[in-house]
Amino acid sequence: MKFIILLVFTFCVNALMLRSVKDKMTEGVIQQIREQIKNPQTQHYHSAYNRLAYYVDTFGPRLWGSESMADAVDALYSEIEKMGFDRVWKENLGEITSWMRGEESVTLYEPREIPQKLNMIGLGWTPAGTVKGEVEVVHSFEELKQKDVRGKIVCYNFEWNGYGSAIAFRFAGPTEAEKAGAIGTMIRSVASVSIASPHTGMTDYENIKKPAVAITVEDADMIDRMRQRGQKVVVEIKTGGQQYKTTSDNFFAEIKGSKYPDEILLMGGHWDSWDVGSQTGANDDGGGVIVCLEALRILNSLGLKPKRTIRFIAWSGEEMGQKNNGGFHYALNHGKENHIIAFESDLGSTKPYGFGITAGQQFTQLVTYMAQEYLTGIGAERVYPNDGESVDSGVLAEITGTPMMNNRIADNENHDFYFAYHHTAGDSMWMMDPDDMDDNVVAIASIMYLIADYDGPIPKD
Amino acid sequence: MKFIILLVFTFCVNALMLRSVKDKMTEGVIQQIREQIKNPQTQHYHSAYNRLAYYVDTFGPRLWGSESMADAVDALYSEIEKMGFDRVWKENLGEITSWMRGEESVTLYEPREIPQKLNMIGLGWTPAGTVKGEVEVVHSFEELKQKDVRGKIVCYNFEWNGYGSAIAFRFAGPTEAEKAGAIGTMIRSVASVSIASPHTGMTDYENIKKPAVAITVEDADMIDRMRQRGQKVVVEIKTGGQQYKTTSDNFFAEIKGSKYPDEILLMGGHWDSWDVGSQTGANDDGGGVIVCLEALRILNSLGLKPKRTIRFIAWSGEEMGQKNNGGFHYALNHGKENHIIAFESDLGSTKPYGFGITAGQQFTQLVTYMAQEYLTGIGAERVYPNDGESVDSGVLAEITGTPMMNNRIADNENHDFYFAYHHTAGDSMWMMDPDDMDDNVVAIASIMYLIADYDGPIPKD
Repeated sequence: MKFIILLVFTFCVNALMLRSVKDKMTEGVIQQIREQIKNPQTQHYHSAYNRLAYYVDTFGPRLWGSESMADAVDALYSEIEKMGFDRVWKENLGEITSWMRGEESVTLYEPREIPQKLNMIGLGWTPAGTVKGEVEVVHSFEELKQKDVRGKIVCYNFEWNGYGSAIAFRFAGPTEAEKAGAIGTMIRSVASVSIASPHTGMTDYENIKKPAVAITVEDADMIDRMRQRGQKVVVEIKTGGQQYKTTSDNFFAEIKGSKYPDEILLMGGHWDSWDVGSQTGANDDGGGVIVCLEALRILNSLGLKPKRTIRFIAWSGEEMGQKNNGGFHYALNHGKENHIIAFESDLGSTKPYGFGITAGQQFTQLVTYMAQEYLTGIGAERVYPNDGESVDSGVLAEITGTPMMNNRIADNENHDFYFAYHHTAGDSMWMMDPDDMDDNVVAIASIMYLIADYDGPIPKD
Repeated sequence: MKFIILLVFTFCVNALMLRSVKDKMTEGVIQQIREQIKNPQTQHYHSAYNRLAYYVDTFGPRLWGSESMADAVDALYSEIEKMGFDRVWKENLGEITSWMRGEESVTLYEPREIPQKLNMIGLGWTPAGTVKGEVEVVHSFEELKQKDVRGKIVCYNFEWNGYGSAIAFRFAGPTEAEKAGAIGTMIRSVASVSIASPHTGMTDYENIKKPAVAITVEDADMIDRMRQRGQKVVVEIKTGGQQYKTTSDNFFAEIKGSKYPDEILLMGGHWDSWDVGSQTGANDDGGGVIVCLEALRILNSLGLKPKRTIRFIAWSGEEMGQKNNGGFHYALNHGKENHIIAFESDLGSTKPYGFGITAGQQFTQLVTYMAQEYLTGIGAERVYPNDGESVDSGVLAEITGTPMMNNRIADNENHDFYFAYHHTAGDSMWMMDPDDMDDNVVAIASIMYLIADYDGPIPKD
């Protein structure tokens, strides 16, 4: 009996020691990642910000399939090829149908004596056209049904209660207005706050036939006031959107797993962006691509060989939402591989505060444990269950059931900070911070390493 | 002796009673002003906001001497004529030289492969011109001296430390750059925060000869980064500004003083504005004009007859800064009248928190006493000595020594809220609040009444 007790005791001590040794090793790795990135003497310090700034400044916005996008893909890809990863490659999407903006404007003719150009931006996929007519304001789809908008231009002026409810007006608003007989649509920009800032975004590309634009929240309110006081409102909308055939690439870099190379942690963002201003696509989602790339780079440069494969992806075409974009292309071509997780950084790369995860309970618990055990103190220990979805990873998840994760950004409940700049010319390096971007790199590199190097089998549920 | 004591005692009691009766009457008036304006059942409730919105929406921005400005003057003047004041009149400024904006743009040619239009706005009084050249960034006038900018375009990228230091770059930056041999100038917008928002404003109108524009803080930083990493930057600036002859009016309304009609309290704002966007001039300074007008209107509609004359003025041409604008015209034509105070509301009509005053010590003390005694509880009891200056009242003060007052607005030390919108398309009804505007009306009507109806002589120092 004493012997058995001794045996059990010895075993426990060994297990504890092993655990303790293991913890210290892992802790050491996480510590190293952090120290390398946060140390001003290393090549990693502020590298995410500086690299992103170089691309944003030099290539400008990266509309899907555009020449700027292709140039920015080629340039970043060439850099990645020299970074010493186990494998770097591109995948061409074949012929794609994309869309380019043309000359566009909204001019207010009544009640003003002197015609007034309004700040505006065409919605993605709006066709070319010129329409002039009386404006009717509606605040909901219900109200659209109740009003006679035949031959008129509909102005949707909804209340901002976060992206979820607003997006319906941008996506379905124009085509619903068309169905009701409208000749064109203006939506209130999907925005939290505004300095007369128009926000673009995709509308219903499969059905849109008439000019559809976003005006500022200021002008949507103005037109609403005009109608409320009984003033007749007449505007002319001009749009110049055109579809065209082009192509684009997803591109990749990989650290091969040392023990389970076929178990893949996918991690990335989308390299395409909207085209509103000189730097659009800094935070959405150039930052997401770059912080994931830098996360892979730090693991590689520390010579770490996690047990599972970590695959960086720069998706192409998230914003344009077509069925043959990079998200679909990857999912269709790689769906049969064993994806442990699809991590997508597309909520911004400003101040991080944790992760969202959409996975089974056990996997969620494991990741929660890892974050709390190792990432406390770097501001990334919070894990939000059932909240890990993103658009491109979502396609893979839809087809294969792969769990999803994302990195979350400090903001209020409605993400008012994010949606002040989203899809505007203000999505620029000005809203980014080098230290915050570094913190994202630390957080993402750490959690990816922890999962990739986890000893046991990854729970399937 | 007893008799004398009794006499003194009686006198004191009488004086105290008188004072007490007086206080209650005055308190009652202040109470009435507040109740009338804050009561949703009266015509005064939200009248400031609604009236301002009508003008902003219907007439648009009111650039000095423009047709929109003239229309907005005529329309508001017609309304005022029907408001039942003792006297309403206009004063024509005669022939004035004003300036109108033309087509304008900034296009970035290098280091981009694909030319990129930048968000921009020409500075007031910039002449028409097209210049293309290499850009040199400077951060101070010192640095301008040290760099060879001959044949180049200068980009001023200064640090935001409030309006005071920034304004020097907007006003003198372009002409200083010209003197150093530059062919054109871009200044970083004078802005606290930005969503890619260009801010206009007056530059050195007497000397400017070459294109001078404001770009966004985002793009000023971008061009700075480009230069820092050794990229050559080439832009083309096009401006279309033109001077022309026109005319404009100051306009007035008055409640005649019941006891000292020749002692005048001047009170108003400037009705002209910049021309950036669809609603520019809501807060700067349509709001200032309207809250002062509403302040006079509430006093009038309560049938109050203060001892001194209260004169409302809508100045014309503050933004353009010419030597024959409304500020100078009034000062030169009315400088010999006995002005007790010149109150100018031009710091915005958002949330009020007190008054600034530039006056002698005794007058300052009197106003401070009045505010603390009667305006506590309506958020307007704070009086900031030696801080009552504004531009138009400043001309009168310069010529006549008239004390100045202004109404102050809740903001941080650098007025970052105000300077997010100042001289942009975002200066709109969206940043205004009906309750805050009402609070301004209450505060201004109250302090004007208190000074105008003050029993004793107004201290001269």
